[in-house]
Order: sequence, then structure tokens, then C-alpha cells
Amino acid sequence: MKIIAGNVCAPLGFRANGVHCGIRRSKSKRDLSLIVSDVPCSAAAVYTQNLVKGAPLLVTQRHIADGRAQAVIVNSGIANTCNADGVEVAEKMAELAADQLGLKPEDICVASTGVIGQPLDLTPVREGLPGLVAGLARDTEHGEFAAQGIMTTDTRMKEIAVEFTAGGKTCRIGGIAKGSGMIHPNLATMLVFITTDCAVSPEMLKKALSSDVTRTFNMTSVDGDTSTNDNVVLLANGLAGNEEITSEGPDFTSFMQALNTITVHLCRMIAGDGEGATKMLECTVSNAKTEKDARTVAKAVITSSLVKTAMFGSDANWGRVLCATGYSGADVDVTKVELSFRSKAGVIDVCRDGSGIPFSEEIAKKVLSEKEIEILIDLHDGEGKATAWGCDLTYDYVKINGDYRT
Amino acid sequence: MKIIAGNVCAPLGFRANGVHCGIRRSKSKRDLSLIVSDVPCSAAAVYTQNLVKGAPLLVTQRHIADGRAQAVIVNSGIANTCNADGVEVAEKMAELAADQLGLKPEDICVASTGVIGQPLDLTPVREGLPGLVAGLARDTEHGEFAAQGIMTTDTRMKEIAVEFTAGGKTCRIGGIAKGSGMIHPNLATMLVFITTDCAVSPEMLKKALSSDVTRTFNMTSVDGDTSTNDNVVLLANGLAGNEEITSEGPDFTSFMQALNTITVHLCRMIAGDGEGATKMLECTVSNAKTEKDARTVAKAVITSSLVKTAMFGSDANWGRVLCATGYSGADVDVTKVELSFRSKAGVIDVCRDGSGIPFSEEIAKKVLSEKEIEILIDLHDGEGKATAWGCDLTYDYVKINGDYRT
Repeated sequence: MKIIAGNVCAPLGFRANGVHCGIRRSKSKRDLSLIVSDVPCSAAAVYTQNLVKGAPLLVTQRHIADGRAQAVIVNSGIANTCNADGVEVAEKMAELAADQLGLKPEDICVASTGVIGQPLDLTPVREGLPGLVAGLARDTEHGEFAAQGIMTTDTRMKEIAVEFTAGGKTCRIGGIAKGSGMIHPNLATMLVFITTDCAVSPEMLKKALSSDVTRTFNMTSVDGDTSTNDNVVLLANGLAGNEEITSEGPDFTSFMQALNTITVHLCRMIAGDGEGATKMLECTVSNAKTEKDARTVAKAVITSSLVKTAMFGSDANWGRVLCATGYSGADVDVTKVELSFRSKAGVIDVCRDGSGIPFSEEIAKKVLSEKEIEILIDLHDGEGKATAWGCDLTYDYVKINGDYRT
Repeated sequence: MKIIAGNVCAPLGFRANGVHCGIRRSKSKRDLSLIVSDVPCSAAAVYTQNLVKGAPLLVTQRHIADGRAQAVIVNSGIANTCNADGVEVAEKMAELAADQLGLKPEDICVASTGVIGQPLDLTPVREGLPGLVAGLARDTEHGEFAAQGIMTTDTRMKEIAVEFTAGGKTCRIGGIAKGSGMIHPNLATMLVFITTDCAVSPEMLKKALSSDVTRTFNMTSVDGDTSTNDNVVLLANGLAGNEEITSEGPDFTSFMQALNTITVHLCRMIAGDGEGATKMLECTVSNAKTEKDARTVAKAVITSSLVKTAMFGSDANWGRVLCATGYSGADVDVTKVELSFRSKAGVIDVCRDGSGIPFSEEIAKKVLSEKEIEILIDLHDGEGKATAWGCDLTYDYVKINGDYRT
């Protein structure tokens, strides 16, 4: 398996594009994206667990119920959530795309991201679609146009592609994502679109995705708010020519590994590009009683506002990490906890057996001044292990969210 | 029942004081406080649910196990938590105070607040105690010295006193608190000390306190972080001369009402003086399926970083309130939700039946520019009701916590 250049257009038979159609005011901002496979795909998706669900999710859920889909249409700027006519509008958006693509509306997934509670006027979508479809192409540039079209307060485009082998055939898998704010998924996440030319049955695709998100997107948090529109869609068109993966085995394992490479990369990008973030935090908990305990602790730590602000200030205030460990709800023996901070500048041990140990504040400052910080927690109480990704809490987070709508 | 001037010194027979002993660097900052009753008291306390517990809490828990106490000693600056010798140091602190007061160490409650994981050197405590004890007095000013001695990043002193009648006798109850950061109690909270001259048995005192905190301190959140040192101590010395309250009845109800007036006031003060806060948020959820559902929703809303930043920006971004309602975990029918914002500038309805309704952004801005904002959520789904208190999330929260230790 190796990382290759590209994104959702890296796998065979996927074309993409993104344009500015007018949902957002700024003309330089793409706001409508399309990803299309040349042939029908196995499809799987996971959605937000928020009781308030974006209307597009309800429509995608329905369209994907048969395990099949062929295209995804997404807009940014307005979430189409908490609107009385939301589902109707999302269905219409699928119809408009289907008309232009010569597909059935039931084979189109729909997603929206942006402000909640504002009506989505489809006029710009209707007017923008012909150009969007005419410009579809199978190259990295057009995949990037699609990645740009789903960005909101993101500052960086998020894309990745991987090549791997299944059934003796070279397969590719690629993804794009938007993250930034309202990122604290629960069994699903932000907007993520992943394509592969590997042949995988709908059942195994669903199994792969569900199992993966538990350890990836569900372990990523920017601000503790679980969005109404979180959504990961995975399309597999089988054009790599491998024998369809229909059960567990070496091919499924290869596929899972490739998928995990894609998702971990996107999680790290989403965390590092959290609203206002200056640093990416990766918390790894090892030797917990169970994997679930490890996950609970790791997520509590990267979610703590006090840990996040300390990291912003490059302050080795490890007591806040231990505090979050203690209130996480996990089964932890606090007298055994060992803590370290690590970055490419080095590693510094700060706590052993649940109590502080002397350390050089100077070295700690150096370690914590890097862009990517690892928080390492050894619970010495079992074999459970988990990693969570987050970011620091900064002035800019407050600025971005204090006046988001204007 | 009426609110009167004063604090923990308002009830008969309580003296207090606060001095600078040298735990904190700034000489203008009091860092050691004492509250003493002239006679033994019924005592009750609730503590943080964090598995990581400050050593002083463990000592207080032990000293108060018999339902009796007579004094409280507290320091700010260092939390005495996650230190290998923590319990020993906290016991020693009780002993030092007992020696000076001529009491038994077992009748002394101990509390500490400040940085976690730094050793607490008792030299300044030992040197400061004689002056602290010599200066004890039963007046509002000395109660305020005590209130100042427990402040950390608090910007305002928190005190209140109430007068009520029980068994035909006039009784008084008064309290002081420190709040500010790491405020997200779970069955217990920050540092709060409440005194009363009402005669109440230890059992009924415990019952009153436990029942009250569920609806007051446990519904207050500044930053979602449950501290290691949260602690509410309630001392009742019986000097009002009423017949001791030993069971439920009109006297117990009067006492509960007076206690609730004290605790709600302190919660509002703690929320409004949250680290960096410019606004106090009060979220009231009505007509929930159960009171528990109402509490869950109210707490999720005032805890949401996105709601908090929107309130900072006076932005009526109600979708974030609905979003938090949806992910709270409460049993909610999102299609019935009604939302309004209210302040002394007026009220503005923003959502009905789970969907947005047109409203004047101008009026909304006016309503949300006040210092105290009410977020009103009607779930139209039962009779459960709850209120939670919080604050906005501001640049200053980040500033304060990005570099707390230096």
C-alpha cells in the first residue's frame, strides 16, 4: 500500500468538479460540488447521531438504502437543516442533478453544509448545474475543485489517495473532507466523501466503514459540538477489476488498511484545521482496561477546553490532562497514570503514578511549541489502546464563531 | 424570607477572615481563609465526582463523616492535587488550624484551589495562621476577606445572605463561593461555603444539600471541565434557637427555600463571572418529557462552545441551540421545539415546531447585547422543567487559560 497523489478522482472511473453557483456571496468561493462514477457503485454511509438531522441526510439515507449510488451532489453555505421544506428541497436537488447526469434521483446522494435554519433557494443550484456537469473531469485538479466546494470555515483543502492490491489487482481509494467547526462526531462525522475502484459488496463496504469510523472520525473533535449534517459517504465502483470482496479475508484486510490510511489522514487534517486552530493534538491512551476506556479517556482529553487552551499557550499544564482523565467516565486507576508530551522537538515526561515529577519547563515549552503535539497517556491497567485527534482552542475560534453568520 | 446584607458571617456565631500568607506571589492577593463557628455544627458536604480528587477533599470527607465540624480552612494558589504527599499535607493543614483555634483536627474541613500537581509547602500557612486567627471577626468585612482568599481567576467576590423563619425563630443562612474556570460540576462543585444558625440535624442537612445541588451547582457550567477540587460545605450551628429540624415539614421547606436562594444566587454569580465571560446565560427548558430530559437539554445548551461564542457575538444563531438540543442525549421530539431569546431589552421568538421563523435581526441583536441572556426552550412534550447557568466563550477565556501557570 502506498500514498499517491490525488483525491476522489484517483480511483478509475470517478469524475468530479466544483463551481461557484451563488449560494455563497463571495464569487471566489466554490459552493457546489459533484462527484460521479461512470458506473453504478456499492455505497455505504454513516450519519450524525444528532436527533436534529439535516434534510439532505434523510434523503441520502433513503437513496442509499439499496446499497447502491452513483453520484454525490453537495453545497456549502446553507445546511438545509431545520427548514420546514428541507426534505422536499433536498429531493429536488437530487432530481436536478439526476436530470443533468442522465441518472435516477435514487442514485444520487445529497449533502449540505453551512448555516442551520436558513431556507435553501435552489435557483443558483439549478443555474449552476449545467456548467458543473459540463466541467466534470477525472483529474486531481477537478477533484480539488470538488474539495473546495464543500469548505466552509476550513482554511485548507483536505484530500488524499492511496493505492493498494486486492485479488491481485491494483486498486485505488481517495477521499476529500470538510471539517473545521461543529466537529464532534458521534458514530458519523463532518462531510467526507471517499471513492474507490475496488470491487466491494454493499454489505462489506458498510461493515468496513462502520468499523473504521469508530476509531477515526468518532475520535476527532474540534469543539465538542456534534453537527446536524455530519456524513461520510463511501462509493466503490469496482473498475479496478478485482474479484468483488464479499467476505472477510486478506482482500478485505487490505481494503480496511487502505481505508484507514485515508480516514486517519483526513481526521488529522480536520483536527489540524479546526476553527482557529494553530496546533493539531493527538492523544494516545495505552494500557487501558479496555479499548472503550482508552477511547473515552482520549476523547475527553482532546475535548477539554482547558487542555486545548493550555496547548495553545504551549503550557505543560498536565494537571488538566489528568483532570480530564479523571472525569472522563472511564474506569481508570488514577494512581497508576503516566503522562508525557511529545512532538518532533522531543519528549517530556511530566507525571508518574498519578503524581507530578520534576521536569524542565524550558524543554516542555520547546516540545509544546510545535504544530503537532502528542499527548501520551499510559494507564498501566490493561491492554486497551486508542487515539483521538483534536486541536487547540484559540482567540480565532472565538472570533470565527462569535460572528459566523455575518 | 428576605435577602440581607452579608455572607458566611451573617448567621449568629460565625467568624471569618482571609489573609495573604505567601502561597501566591502577589502580596495584594489574599490566599488563606478561615471560617469558624463558636460552637460545634451539623455539617454536610458534596464533592467532585472526578476520579482524580484533590487531597483536601479526602481529608474533609473523613473529618465530616460523623456529620459534625466547626471550621473550614482554605487556601488558593495551589490545589494540593496529584501530589504524592497530598493527604499528609492536607491533614497537617487541619492540625495547624486546630492548634491555633483550640479545636480537634477532626472538626476542621480543608479545601484548596489553584494549580494541580504542584507541591504545597505549608511554611506560609504555618506563618500566616496566627495572624489569620487573631483577625477573625463576625462582620461582613471579614466574611469578605474570607471570600477574597478563595478567589483564583474570579474577578468578583461571591457572597449572599438570607433571613428566614423556622420554628418561630429568625434564622440566617449565608454563603461565599469561588468559581471561574474548570467549572462543570458533577454532583458537586467549585468551592462553596455556606453557614447557617438554623438548627438542622446532620441527616437533614445532607438531604437538603444533596437535593439542592442537583438543580443548582450541577446545572452550572463555565467550560465543561469537572474540577478535581469541587466542594460545597454547609455548616449549621443552631444558634438561632429554633427546634432542631430532624424531618421533613414546614421548617425543612423554609430551610430548603432559603438554601436554594443562596445557591441559585451563587450559581448565577459563578456563571456570570466565568473565566473571560462578558455575559451570563440562563437556559430554561420547559415541558420536557421528564425533569431529567429538561436538565440534559439545558446543560447541553449552556455547555456548547458554538452557542457560547454566538452569545459572545450577540448573534441569534439559534440553529446552534437546536443542534445542542438534538445531540444532548435527551428524549426530544425535535419537530415540536420552540425557541426564544429574552433579556431585559425584550424577547424574540426564533424557532417554532423545530423550524426557523422570520425575526428582526435588529431586535435580536438588541436582546442579545445585554449582560444577562435567557435562552428559552419549550419542548411541548411533557411537564419537565429545568434551568442551567453558563456564560459566553470569549477571547479572554483563551487568554486566561492559554497561560494560567505563569
